[in-house]
Amino acid sequence: MNKEMSETLVRTGPGTRMGNLMRRYWIPVLMSNEIAEPDGPQVRVKILGEKLLAFRDSEGRPGLIDEFCSHRGVSLFFGRNEENGIRCSYHGLKFDRNGKCVDVPSAPQSCARMNIKSYPCIERGGLVWAYMGPPDKMPEPPELEWATLPPSHVFVSKRLQECNYLQAMEGGIDTAHVSYVHRYEVDNDPMHKDTKALDYIKADGNVIFEIEKQPFGLTLFGRRNGEPDSYYWRITQWLFPWFTLIPPFGQHSLAGHVWVPIDDHNCWAWSINFHPDKPLSDEERRDLEQGKGIHCEYEPGTFRPKANKDNDYLIDRQAQKDKRAYSGIFGFAIQDASLQESMGPIQDHEAERLLPTDKAIVMARRMLHEAALGLEQGIEPPALNVSAQHVRAAGVLLERSADPTEWAKEHLADSRSQPVYSI
Amino acid sequence: MNKEMSETLVRTGPGTRMGNLMRRYWIPVLMSNEIAEPDGPQVRVKILGEKLLAFRDSEGRPGLIDEFCSHRGVSLFFGRNEENGIRCSYHGLKFDRNGKCVDVPSAPQSCARMNIKSYPCIERGGLVWAYMGPPDKMPEPPELEWATLPPSHVFVSKRLQECNYLQAMEGGIDTAHVSYVHRYEVDNDPMHKDTKALDYIKADGNVIFEIEKQPFGLTLFGRRNGEPDSYYWRITQWLFPWFTLIPPFGQHSLAGHVWVPIDDHNCWAWSINFHPDKPLSDEERRDLEQGKGIHCEYEPGTFRPKANKDNDYLIDRQAQKDKRAYSGIFGFAIQDASLQESMGPIQDHEAERLLPTDKAIVMARRMLHEAALGLEQGIEPPALNVSAQHVRAAGVLLERSADPTEWAKEHLADSRSQPVYSI
Amino acid sequence: MNKEMSETLVRTGPGTRMGNLMRRYWIPVLMSNEIAEPDGPQVRVKILGEKLLAFRDSEGRPGLIDEFCSHRGVSLFFGRNEENGIRCSYHGLKFDRNGKCVDVPSAPQSCARMNIKSYPCIERGGLVWAYMGPPDKMPEPPELEWATLPPSHVFVSKRLQECNYLQAMEGGIDTAHVSYVHRYEVDNDPMHKDTKALDYIKADGNVIFEIEKQPFGLTLFGRRNGEPDSYYWRITQWLFPWFTLIPPFGQHSLAGHVWVPIDDHNCWAWSINFHPDKPLSDEERRDLEQGKGIHCEYEPGTFRPKANKDNDYLIDRQAQKDKRAYSGIFGFAIQDASLQESMGPIQDHEAERLLPTDKAIVMARRMLHEAALGLEQGIEPPALNVSAQHVRAAGVLLERSADPTEWAKEHLADSRSQPVYSI
Repeated sequence: MNKEMSETLVRTGPGTRMGNLMRRYWIPVLMSNEIAEPDGPQVRVKILGEKLLAFRDSEGRPGLIDEFCSHRGVSLFFGRNEENGIRCSYHGLKFDRNGKCVDVPSAPQSCARMNIKSYPCIERGGLVWAYMGPPDKMPEPPELEWATLPPSHVFVSKRLQECNYLQAMEGGIDTAHVSYVHRYEVDNDPMHKDTKALDYIKADGNVIFEIEKQPFGLTLFGRRNGEPDSYYWRITQWLFPWFTLIPPFGQHSLAGHVWVPIDDHNCWAWSINFHPDKPLSDEERRDLEQGKGIHCEYEPGTFRPKANKDNDYLIDRQAQKDKRAYSGIFGFAIQDASLQESMGPIQDHEAERLLPTDKAIVMARRMLHEAALGLEQGIEPPALNVSAQHVRAAGVLLERSADPTEWAKEHLADSRSQPVYSI
Repeated sequence: MNKEMSETLVRTGPGTRMGNLMRRYWIPVLMSNEIAEPDGPQVRVKILGEKLLAFRDSEGRPGLIDEFCSHRGVSLFFGRNEENGIRCSYHGLKFDRNGKCVDVPSAPQSCARMNIKSYPCIERGGLVWAYMGPPDKMPEPPELEWATLPPSHVFVSKRLQECNYLQAMEGGIDTAHVSYVHRYEVDNDPMHKDTKALDYIKADGNVIFEIEKQPFGLTLFGRRNGEPDSYYWRITQWLFPWFTLIPPFGQHSLAGHVWVPIDDHNCWAWSINFHPDKPLSDEERRDLEQGKGIHCEYEPGTFRPKANKDNDYLIDRQAQKDKRAYSGIFGFAIQDASLQESMGPIQDHEAERLLPTDKAIVMARRMLHEAALGLEQGIEPPALNVSAQHVRAAGVLLERSADPTEWAKEHLADSRSQPVYSI
Repeated sequence: MNKEMSETLVRTGPGTRMGNLMRRYWIPVLMSNEIAEPDGPQVRVKILGEKLLAFRDSEGRPGLIDEFCSHRGVSLFFGRNEENGIRCSYHGLKFDRNGKCVDVPSAPQSCARMNIKSYPCIERGGLVWAYMGPPDKMPEPPELEWATLPPSHVFVSKRLQECNYLQAMEGGIDTAHVSYVHRYEVDNDPMHKDTKALDYIKADGNVIFEIEKQPFGLTLFGRRNGEPDSYYWRITQWLFPWFTLIPPFGQHSLAGHVWVPIDDHNCWAWSINFHPDKPLSDEERRDLEQGKGIHCEYEPGTFRPKANKDNDYLIDRQAQKDKRAYSGIFGFAIQDASLQESMGPIQDHEAERLLPTDKAIVMARRMLHEAALGLEQGIEPPALNVSAQHVRAAGVLLERSADPTEWAKEHLADSRSQPVYSI
C-alpha cells in the first residue's frame, strides 16, 4: 500500500478523507450505561480525533457536545449536568444537548453567539450512537442484528486498543490468523466448548478462503474438511465502514465487532455477543462479564485491558512452551491487541509484504479508499441503505458440491427470517 | 485575542517580548525556607524557562546561578555547597553566588573564562526574589504590603499549576467566577466563617463591576446589595506584571497571589495571607498550613497539589449533586486549577468568545501587551516605582450614593496609614 | 566542538557517519545468559537505533534478526522460538537465525521474498557480539583480554545509561574526575581495600597526565607521587571505538568498560572485572553480583539502575555533608551516570568550555571524527587488526627518572606474556 493510500485510510480527524467518509455513518460513541442516570455525571469521549462530552439530560435523552465552553475554553467535564443542560463551572454558561447556549447569567443577550458543537444521538443495542456528518445527510439508524435486539439478548463491551483502527479492524477481517495466535485459546474458552466445529478446525489447518464483494462490504467463506462428504464453512462479514460479524460455535452466541477510531493512534474495539431469538443465559452473561470469549479484563476504573503493552500483555513463556497459549498471551482480544499494537501506533504499510491470504484485507482497503475518494468527488458512500445490514454470520456443513455463496444468498442475507446456522 | 497578541503574552523565555518585560521586575523564585541553612542543599529552580540553581552560601546569602557547569554542562545540583560557593562534582570547578568561577583545581588560570550566569537575590516576605533583567535597570525592592511585614504576620505557599501563567492570573483578576465554581466553598472554609459579607454575597448573585486603570495596574470594584441604604463593595487590585490582592472576610486575613511562569506550560501560583497589624493566630496558621483557604495539600515531597489533573482533581460527583462542591472539586485553589488547566497548557485565545464580564481581563491583557511592545521601542515599563505597590484590597459597606473610586483613593492608595477595611 | 563535529559523533543510526564506522566493529549486544536456553524466550534488543530480536536456536546458536515480521510488521517478540527459528504468531511465518524465511504456511512459494534482516553473532567473554556492517568487511573476532578468558575468570554486567554514548564514554576516558565525584567512594568499596595505591592517591590530588596516541586508540598515563624516589603511575587505555581499560588496586581484578549506543539518547554501559590468570574468588563474585565496584543494583526485572534520574539517584545530602559521598550519591557507576545524564540526553557541545585536563577527550573525539570522515572517503577504519587489542592497564611504581611510555611498550603491549602490574 503506497503512502497516499495509507494516509487516506488511517487519518480520520475532521476534514480528512476517511474522516469525512466515517462521519456519514452512525458511530458508536459509548455504552448507554456509562451515562446511566438523567442528570448523572457527564463523560469525556474522544471520537475521530474530536474531544467531546456525553451526558444524559433531565429527560433521559443522551447528548454529545463539544467538551469545551465557547467562552474561555474550559472543559465542561467540570461543569454541572442539571435541568436539561450542562452548566460551565467557570461563569455559569449553560448548553443543552443540541449545543445551544441557553444561559449566560452575566449577559443573557449574548446566548445566541455562544452555541457549541453538538451531534445527534440515538440509542440502540445498549450503545449511544452519534451522527457527526452533514445534517442533511443523516442516514437511517443502524439495523445490524445485534443493535435491534432487546437488552436481554445482547452483551456489549468496549476495550481500548492502542493503535490505528485500520490494523485492528484488519485483524477482524483476516480470519487466517485464527490458526496461529488463537490456536490453543479455543481450549481455554467456555464459548467454544462441546462443539463439533472445533474438531473440524483442529483436524484441518489448511483453510481455503473465498471472498465475495457485497453492497454492504464483503462476505468471507472459510472452508475446512467436515465429514467425508461435506465441508465445514465458516461464513463471516465485513460491513462498511467498520463492522465485522462472527459465526457461533454450537449453541453459543453469535458475535461481532466494531472498530472505531478514537484518534489516529487509538481505537475502541467494541465486542458483541448475542442470541437473535432468546436471552443470554445467566451463565453466558457471567462468563462475558468476566471477560471470557472475545471480551477482556480491565485496569480498574478504565476500559484499558489489564494485560497491555506496558506489561507485555502478561506474557507467560512457560504457557507458550506448554502449548497452552500460542504466543504466551491469554484471551482472544489480548492476543490480537498484542500483535496489532506491536506494529506501532500506525503500521508502516509501505514496508509490508502481503500474501495471498491477505486478499480480503486488500479488498476492504480498496473499497474504503475508493469510497473515500469517491465522496470527495460527490459520490454517495456505500451501504447507507441499512437493509444491507440484515446479514448474519454462520457456520455450516454443506455437501462438497454445494456453492456456499448461493447458500448464503438464500440463508444469511435477511437474517430475520432465518434460524441461526451453527454447528 | 489574535495570534500575535496571544503569542506575545504567553511566551516568557529569554529574548521574548513578555519575557523581557517580566525580567524588569523582581521575581519570586522560591521560599526562603527551601534553602533554610547556610551551606545546606541547593535547589533546582526553573523560572521564565531558565534552569537555575538556588542556594544559601556560608554567610547566609541567597544565590541564584545557572544550573549547569560552564565546563562540561553537568548539573550543579549534584555539586557541593561549601565555603561560599557551589563546587561541581565532576572536576571540582567552584562558583560563588555571583556566578564567578573561583576555583578550577586543574587549571587555576582558567577561572576567568569559566564564569556562569547569576541573578541578584533579595529576601522579603519569606520569599527569595531575583532580578533577571539588565543590571543597570534594577528597580527598588518590592513594597507590596505582605512583602514588608515580619514573618509572624504572613503565611506564603506556592503551588504548581500546569498551564500558562496568563490563564492562571486571569482567574485571579476575574472575580466574576467566584459565584460559580467557588459557590459552596465558602461554607466549607474556616476563612469565611461568621461574616456579614457572606450573607450579602449569597443574597445577591448579580455582581456589578467597575474597573479603574491605575499606574500600578487595575482596581476592580464589585458591587452587591448590602443593607437597604448601602452597597457591599469588594475592592481588589491587579498589579504589574503578576500580582493580585484579595480583601478579607470579617476579621480574617488579607490575601494575595503572584503568578510566575516556570515555563510556557507551567507556573507557580503563589498564595499569601497576612495581617498588616498583628501576627496570624496559631489557629489561622494551622488552618493555612493544612491547605485551607486559598492554599492546598500536596503530593508528598513536592509542590504539586494532591488533587491534580491525573486524578481529575479528586472530583466527587456526589458532593457536586449535593451542592457541597459546585464542580465536585474541593478547595479554592484546586477549583481554579481544574478549570484553568482544562483549557490546555496554553489556552487557544483565537477560539475564545469574550463576554462583558471579561472587561478587566481584556484591559490587563492590553496593558501587558502595550508594555511589552513599548519596552521593545525603548519605553520604560509601568509600575517600577514601588510606592504604587502600597495599595490594599478592601470589603466595605458604602452608602448607595457614594463613589467607591473616590473612597478607594482616600483609603486604599497608601495602606500603611489606614486600618483594614473589612466586614 | 562545533555543530558538525558534534552531530557526526553523536548520531549512530543506520546511514550516519559514526553509525557506519561503529558497524565495522564487533558490537556487544547482550549477555549470553539473557538467552540462556536453546529455544528459550527471545529478547528485544535495540542497538545503534535498530530494533532487533536476539534468540538462541535449537542448536544453541545465537541469532540476531529484525524484531518485526516482513509480512505485516508484527513483533516477533510475540512469536515462538522453535526448531531453529522464530515463528510469527500472526500467520505462522518462520525465520531462522540468518533472517531467512523458512516457512509461509499459507503460501510456501512466497518464502523467498519474505526474508528479514539479520546480523552474524559470536559469543566471547559471556557476551553475544554482532557484526552489523557490510558482510565482506567483517573483522576478526574481538581479542580484548577479558573477551578471551574462561567464564570463571570474568564478571560482566550491563547498565542502562540514559544519555548519548559519547558523554558516557568520555567519563571513562577522563580519569581527571576520579578525585572529585568518586573521592570518598574508594573508602566504601571492597575492590579498593588494603592497597598501597590508595595512600598515594589520597596523598597527591594533583595528577599529571601524559597521553600517547596508539594504533588502537590512546594510552593515558596518570602520575602521582609514590615513595620519595618513585612515581605511582596509573596506565589506562581507550580502544577504538568504545572500549576502556582500568588498572586494578592491589590484588583486586582488572576492569574495563564498553559504551554501546542503544539509540542517540541511551547507551549500554558494559562493566567488566577479570583476572587474566585465575578465577574470580567466590567473595569477589559475590561482591560484583551485589553491584559493588563499577557495577550497580537494578530496578527489578530491568537493567536500569535502582538509583536513577527519577529519584535523583537516591542522593543523600547528609552523606554528602559528612564526606561519605562527594555528591551525596553512592557507587562509581551511579556517580558517573548522575553527572553524565544531567548534561541532557545529548550534551550541548557548542556550549562547553574545555580545560587542559580534557586533552584525552579532545584527542579521542578527533580520532573518531577523522575515522568517520575517512570511512566516507573509502579509508579503512583504524584498529581492525585485533592484535592491537592485546594491551592491558596497569598501576606501577617507577623510578622518578623512568619513562612510563617506554615501560608500557615493553610490559603492556602484549599482555599475554606478562604478569599483572598492580600495587
